[in-house]
Amino acid sequence: MEFTLKFIADKMGLELKGDDCIITGLNTLEVAGPQDISFLANPKYISSIETTKAGAVVISPEYAHLVKRAIISSNPYFDFAKLLTFFSKPQGSFQGISPQAYIHPEAELAEDVTVYPFAYVGAKAKIGKGSCLFSGVYIGEDCKVGDNCIIYPNAVLMASVELGSDSIIQGGVVLGADGFGFVPNGDNIFKIPQIGKVSIGKRVEIGANATIDRAALDYTTVGDDTKIDNLVQIGHNCKIGNACLIVALVGISGSTKVGNRVTLAGQAGLSGHLSIGDDVTVGPQSGVAKDIPSNSVVGGSPAMDKRDFLRNAIIAPKLPEMYNKIKGLEKEVAELKALVQTLANK
Amino acid sequence: MEFTLKFIADKMGLELKGDDCIITGLNTLEVAGPQDISFLANPKYISSIETTKAGAVVISPEYAHLVKRAIISSNPYFDFAKLLTFFSKPQGSFQGISPQAYIHPEAELAEDVTVYPFAYVGAKAKIGKGSCLFSGVYIGEDCKVGDNCIIYPNAVLMASVELGSDSIIQGGVVLGADGFGFVPNGDNIFKIPQIGKVSIGKRVEIGANATIDRAALDYTTVGDDTKIDNLVQIGHNCKIGNACLIVALVGISGSTKVGNRVTLAGQAGLSGHLSIGDDVTVGPQSGVAKDIPSNSVVGGSPAMDKRDFLRNAIIAPKLPEMYNKIKGLEKEVAELKALVQTLANK
Amino acid sequence: MEFTLKFIADKMGLELKGDDCIITGLNTLEVAGPQDISFLANPKYISSIETTKAGAVVISPEYAHLVKRAIISSNPYFDFAKLLTFFSKPQGSFQGISPQAYIHPEAELAEDVTVYPFAYVGAKAKIGKGSCLFSGVYIGEDCKVGDNCIIYPNAVLMASVELGSDSIIQGGVVLGADGFGFVPNGDNIFKIPQIGKVSIGKRVEIGANATIDRAALDYTTVGDDTKIDNLVQIGHNCKIGNACLIVALVGISGSTKVGNRVTLAGQAGLSGHLSIGDDVTVGPQSGVAKDIPSNSVVGGSPAMDKRDFLRNAIIAPKLPEMYNKIKGLEKEVAELKALVQTLANK
Repeated sequence: MEFTLKFIADKMGLELKGDDCIITGLNTLEVAGPQDISFLANPKYISSIETTKAGAVVISPEYAHLVKRAIISSNPYFDFAKLLTFFSKPQGSFQGISPQAYIHPEAELAEDVTVYPFAYVGAKAKIGKGSCLFSGVYIGEDCKVGDNCIIYPNAVLMASVELGSDSIIQGGVVLGADGFGFVPNGDNIFKIPQIGKVSIGKRVEIGANATIDRAALDYTTVGDDTKIDNLVQIGHNCKIGNACLIVALVGISGSTKVGNRVTLAGQAGLSGHLSIGDDVTVGPQSGVAKDIPSNSVVGGSPAMDKRDFLRNAIIAPKLPEMYNKIKGLEKEVAELKALVQTLANK
Repeated sequence: MEFTLKFIADKMGLELKGDDCIITGLNTLEVAGPQDISFLANPKYISSIETTKAGAVVISPEYAHLVKRAIISSNPYFDFAKLLTFFSKPQGSFQGISPQAYIHPEAELAEDVTVYPFAYVGAKAKIGKGSCLFSGVYIGEDCKVGDNCIIYPNAVLMASVELGSDSIIQGGVVLGADGFGFVPNGDNIFKIPQIGKVSIGKRVEIGANATIDRAALDYTTVGDDTKIDNLVQIGHNCKIGNACLIVALVGISGSTKVGNRVTLAGQAGLSGHLSIGDDVTVGPQSGVAKDIPSNSVVGGSPAMDKRDFLRNAIIAPKLPEMYNKIKGLEKEVAELKALVQTLANK
Repeated sequence: MEFTLKFIADKMGLELKGDDCIITGLNTLEVAGPQDISFLANPKYISSIETTKAGAVVISPEYAHLVKRAIISSNPYFDFAKLLTFFSKPQGSFQGISPQAYIHPEAELAEDVTVYPFAYVGAKAKIGKGSCLFSGVYIGEDCKVGDNCIIYPNAVLMASVELGSDSIIQGGVVLGADGFGFVPNGDNIFKIPQIGKVSIGKRVEIGANATIDRAALDYTTVGDDTKIDNLVQIGHNCKIGNACLIVALVGISGSTKVGNRVTLAGQAGLSGHLSIGDDVTVGPQSGVAKDIPSNSVVGGSPAMDKRDFLRNAIIAPKLPEMYNKIKGLEKEVAELKALVQTLANK
């Protein structure tokens, strides 16, 4: 792929600084060569501007004087991200429906569906037009996959999973496994049959090896536009809102409701049966055991208001010092007391 | 599926309140319709009793007056769980042994085994009667799978894994991968060959994408009736007891022994070479670095007695206040000291 | 397999104590029988020496008097580890290239490559000589797999992943899934196309179900000899050095650089865009949000110097006691103040 810089600037409706040139790729300031375009979004990397060999840089007006050839942007990070779409190409090297796949006679595939070798499509499953099932994908019976979905290798959709259009399921994901529902019963443990389903919205992305369990009853749901990172666990009957960002290794226990536009940072954990409001941010490794109202920012385990958490983080290393000071104060106060007692008795 | 309410009550040996009706499904109080049965187990949801459209409710005697039609139970949660078995149906849409599977000529399959397309069964592996291997399952050489096991899509049993009867392996699980055994050796790292095995008991369930490593020597074991959630990691040579509940994203380092009926809550971590007694409960995100005697309840990282942990959790947000109070006290005591000194010198 | 003890001792260049015997296996002191060799590395297990039935023991000179038949070693753990190589045998029960695999006509397989049934090799992928792809493995287009690599069942290498020679990828691993790159854009979330690659060094091992994302631009890299445990997540554009040990359930956010010979203990988490020096050790469950200089040992969340962390761990359970003492001191100081004031006014 190659484009002229002018073509790119015009297409994005942005101002070009300097003469035109041929662009064949994109890269970081550090690695880019003379036919690559790069970007400066974080002032931390400003020193790289002097040494970069990039042919052009997407840059904000205030730093534009630092480079000879640029696309001027009020949001270089976002505009560079858009620019990446010029150069990205879809994964994969197979087209059509493989005779080495298994498609149940009662499955329904819309037009332009791609099915790789070794994919399995169960009875009465419906796959929307333009969707692609990579090798090793399992689609259980009664699943409904929307249009233009991509399901990467070895991902598993157990029975009755519903997936909205334009969603992306990365490799190894398991949707609709049985929820963790058990009742201890003396020395045995009774398995609560899990008969609910999973419903995933539109434009959702689910990261590699993440797991979302089917509901005991009713549905486990993930709203439109929500993005879930690798190795995230979402328990049965959770209701996750729209446009959330859920970072790697987060665990959400059963029946917890998460609002819209919520960010859960890496390795955070949410107990079950909680209600998390809209526009909440939960810090990394936080442990949430209580409901959180909308617009809150929390951190720590157990989670607390983020300002408290940050204050605590500063004080925490001083704990031993505090302990010693308390001991010192006790001694001083005892001595003072004795001395004052002596004075009072005079 | 449909049953009369009377049939259900009789089958469960429970009292029916109100007239008979047809039941075609089960659901939560919120979602249930007039032909659904629901349940009230948690008083938190009592307000839903007024608005539910459920045809009948499994409910305890003390709340039975709130509904017209009910099955009376001293343990509504457990009885509803049992009731779910009336309505659950097995996953899957394939029967028999697929010609698209690979079965090594030296493998032994008992009667009534189901093998989906794209499953692989290695040399000298034995699969017990009635067991089912979904698509993409890998059964390594010398594995022994008991009777009536279900191994869901893309789960992997490496060589010599033993799986007791009536066990369920969810999708994407990996049993018997090499343990994490390495010896730093100058600039290199020497890989300790892992020649041990994995032995899983009867009626065990292992959640999606969980991993249990083969032992370096001898066995990594999981006892009967233990239930393991998604994305749990169990290291080489661990010995996990019977009837344990191990929640998502827990990590257990090598050679740790866990007793019977132990609960490890989500994201808890156990160091290696520990001994955890029977009937222990470890709280979410706890970090356990010491042995734990039987019947303990611990929380926090590093883990401490749960009562201490809860007291600490209340005090922790007051750390900055405490720090300031100590500073204030130091100042006051210094002033007092000076004043008392003056008085004493008079 | 069987060897004489003398053959083993000679082969390892170590001293034999006692008469020769036949050795057919290895095991722990507890489990070993008369034809097994065992080892004593940890004095914790010294009591097992009296009761062991092992035919011989790898043991250090200071404890050699405790056993009749031994291989004397200054590093029994390492020498026993080496000894395991005598008895380990490779996994698997398939040879050659399966007609049930899918190999794109433009893929290039070197000599002696093994491809199991249901493996997929994409266009222009290159597989080095002696490498083995187990069943269900997906090798995307343009991947480069070095010589003598083992890729276990259902592991996924998305497009353009590069894997150095002699590396081992355990089952269910996903390399090269899209990085978690998104820009919130009003009610929508814009997916940043991920067009970079993954490059893994030589002699690397990656544990079951671990995930390493492709870079947004450029490369995500893992250096030679680094060993990664199960369920680890490494974000896009991370640069991991050589000979690191990364334990299970660790998460590393995007663009973080980790030096050489770094150990990250289980469930530790590293924020994005950090720089971690060489020879750093990060404790279990630590949360790292700042750069760490070389040769540091840190623990806790937020991470601090390990000595501080250990001191804190001792003091932390005393927090409520400290809180009460501060309250007590405040009361005492107030009373003293009043008393001193009275005295002063006399």
